[in-house]
Amino acid sequence: MENQSLKPIRCKAAVCRAASEPLIVEEIVVDPPKAYEIRIKIICTSLCHTDVTLWHKVDPAFPRILGHEAYGVVESVGENVEGFAAGDTVVPTFMGQCDSCASCAAEWTNQCTAVPFTMGPGMRRDGTTRFWDGEGKPLSDTVAVTSFSQYTVVDVNQVVKVDTAVPPKIACLLGCCGGTGVGAAWRLAKVQPGSSVVVFGLGSVGLAVVQGAKMCGATKIIGKEFGVTDFVNPSQLGDKSVSEVINAMTDGGADYSFECIGISSVMTEAGRGKTIILGVEKDSQPLCLPSFEFLFGKCVMGSLFGGAKPKTDIPILAEKCMNKELELEKLVTHEVGLTEINTAFNLLLQGKSLRCIIWMDK
Amino acid sequence: MENQSLKPIRCKAAVCRAASEPLIVEEIVVDPPKAYEIRIKIICTSLCHTDVTLWHKVDPAFPRILGHEAYGVVESVGENVEGFAAGDTVVPTFMGQCDSCASCAAEWTNQCTAVPFTMGPGMRRDGTTRFWDGEGKPLSDTVAVTSFSQYTVVDVNQVVKVDTAVPPKIACLLGCCGGTGVGAAWRLAKVQPGSSVVVFGLGSVGLAVVQGAKMCGATKIIGKEFGVTDFVNPSQLGDKSVSEVINAMTDGGADYSFECIGISSVMTEAGRGKTIILGVEKDSQPLCLPSFEFLFGKCVMGSLFGGAKPKTDIPILAEKCMNKELELEKLVTHEVGLTEINTAFNLLLQGKSLRCIIWMDK
Repeated sequence: MENQSLKPIRCKAAVCRAASEPLIVEEIVVDPPKAYEIRIKIICTSLCHTDVTLWHKVDPAFPRILGHEAYGVVESVGENVEGFAAGDTVVPTFMGQCDSCASCAAEWTNQCTAVPFTMGPGMRRDGTTRFWDGEGKPLSDTVAVTSFSQYTVVDVNQVVKVDTAVPPKIACLLGCCGGTGVGAAWRLAKVQPGSSVVVFGLGSVGLAVVQGAKMCGATKIIGKEFGVTDFVNPSQLGDKSVSEVINAMTDGGADYSFECIGISSVMTEAGRGKTIILGVEKDSQPLCLPSFEFLFGKCVMGSLFGGAKPKTDIPILAEKCMNKELELEKLVTHEVGLTEINTAFNLLLQGKSLRCIIWMDK
Repeated sequence: MENQSLKPIRCKAAVCRAASEPLIVEEIVVDPPKAYEIRIKIICTSLCHTDVTLWHKVDPAFPRILGHEAYGVVESVGENVEGFAAGDTVVPTFMGQCDSCASCAAEWTNQCTAVPFTMGPGMRRDGTTRFWDGEGKPLSDTVAVTSFSQYTVVDVNQVVKVDTAVPPKIACLLGCCGGTGVGAAWRLAKVQPGSSVVVFGLGSVGLAVVQGAKMCGATKIIGKEFGVTDFVNPSQLGDKSVSEVINAMTDGGADYSFECIGISSVMTEAGRGKTIILGVEKDSQPLCLPSFEFLFGKCVMGSLFGGAKPKTDIPILAEKCMNKELELEKLVTHEVGLTEINTAFNLLLQGKSLRCIIWMDK
């Protein structure tokens, strides 16, 4: 049963009409939320490398609205939505959590099987879109979050309520890079106090891993900044390999190695302990390892969203940010308004930014 | 300081003088235990595939005495050995546990770094042998356990005391295949109650994994026997792949897949959840996986001795055997005396046996 009182909303969104072309800020129409859906007014969003990857990809989903790391306020809720009301401050997430399937109950996975993650397009329950352009033609969504729009519609399983006291920028980052990086150290690798950690690739996710490792009590964190204790510059090693240098620094190899770049040779070179894969290999090279390495304790793992369960873990991480156990705001290097969204793309493509916050009312 | 009262012992051992040649039961001399060492009278031992691998391997370590899965009684102890006395019933293990290094204190690894595992030859503290043939020439050991001898000398870190009530055959199996297989389900994979498990390869280790998974409360165990709930015969699948059939049986893929064969194609085909590698790839093919599979939650892990800590876990597993939670004795298909040890090799090579117990006084 539809809530007939809810009307479509006209608002602005940054539309990607073709691969690798500048986004166009247009007026669009956002449908009312259907059953189990929530319509959210996006306050701010940020640009993630995954958006850039999807922007480059020649995909039948064009024209589409990108964006999946965001913070907003509930505007209205559809039928059968419990626990949310207009005015709630929320983080929409690409990971769902129904809290009733076996996977949500399991400790070892964060992949809800009731409304599973897909790259889309379309809402996860019915595969249809909620976005239309000025001519009434459909616009594809992005991982059912679609935050480069002033309003979006998200499944109730993908919406996390956060305390209104949490700064919007921090809440926004928890929706992807913050949750993924901190989660990878905390939930997936379960970094132990006193352990040694190497982070390959110090973009936003890698730096969030560093903060997560520090939060978990790692005493040696090899990388570059934000709490890193030691630094390896691959161009200044002489005739030694990165792994030789790291082994010497960690008494035989790091306990945890996080690969946040996406280069298979780095993935295979990573240490003797747990190897956590957070990057996707860009040249589609498989990750190859001799099986005997596994017998000697090698463990290679990865996950979406760092193994964190969004509804359980984002509020916990938000509190840790408020307590200054985490300092995710340091990842924000730039801020722009929606009309300048292509600047955010240029900064990231040129390697000049970590996270660029996009304010939706500017 | 040596204990001068201890003398060399003359006894029988099965000596491997050249790769792939029948073992020769000879009279040898076993040195007294040095500091931190224990001399053990072996009651029974059993033949593991790893012994066969080492027997085939053209190795500078020949002549050597094989054997690493055994049960015995302490005959004498060297200087600085605490907590052991003559008459104690013990399991010597290829894994050490000093209980004072950082690794022994860590939850995530069972690899003691104080006296680390090596393939040898030689005792782990000084690299020398304790075994001599009738002409006084040195005989190499095997992973510092060397149980195809009526007496052996083992580092105190590698000796586990077990209750005298534990049947010798069960204690013996806990030293390698039982500990490895049950440990892999229990300690390494941490199989959760209600989960689904696939075991590829139902030799002794695979069957011990099945028992371990059952002990942990797995409700669907796909394999062949001894508690297995469902069975897949690869020769009777028609045009479907093993993974297609397993995915259909497990609602999208097993939670845990144990590879106990040593074939990289099986390792890569294994399920959506945790993949646990217990076999070593025989043709030295690397294990290759696309990195995006890790992002979707793939986790590949392995370890020596199933991630179990021998001094902590063997007594626990022995108790579970006494309580019939585990039925490792079902893995014993044959028993021979030391003089018939080549029969044990022939049975294993012909695929006619699971575990063959070798009684050392016969």
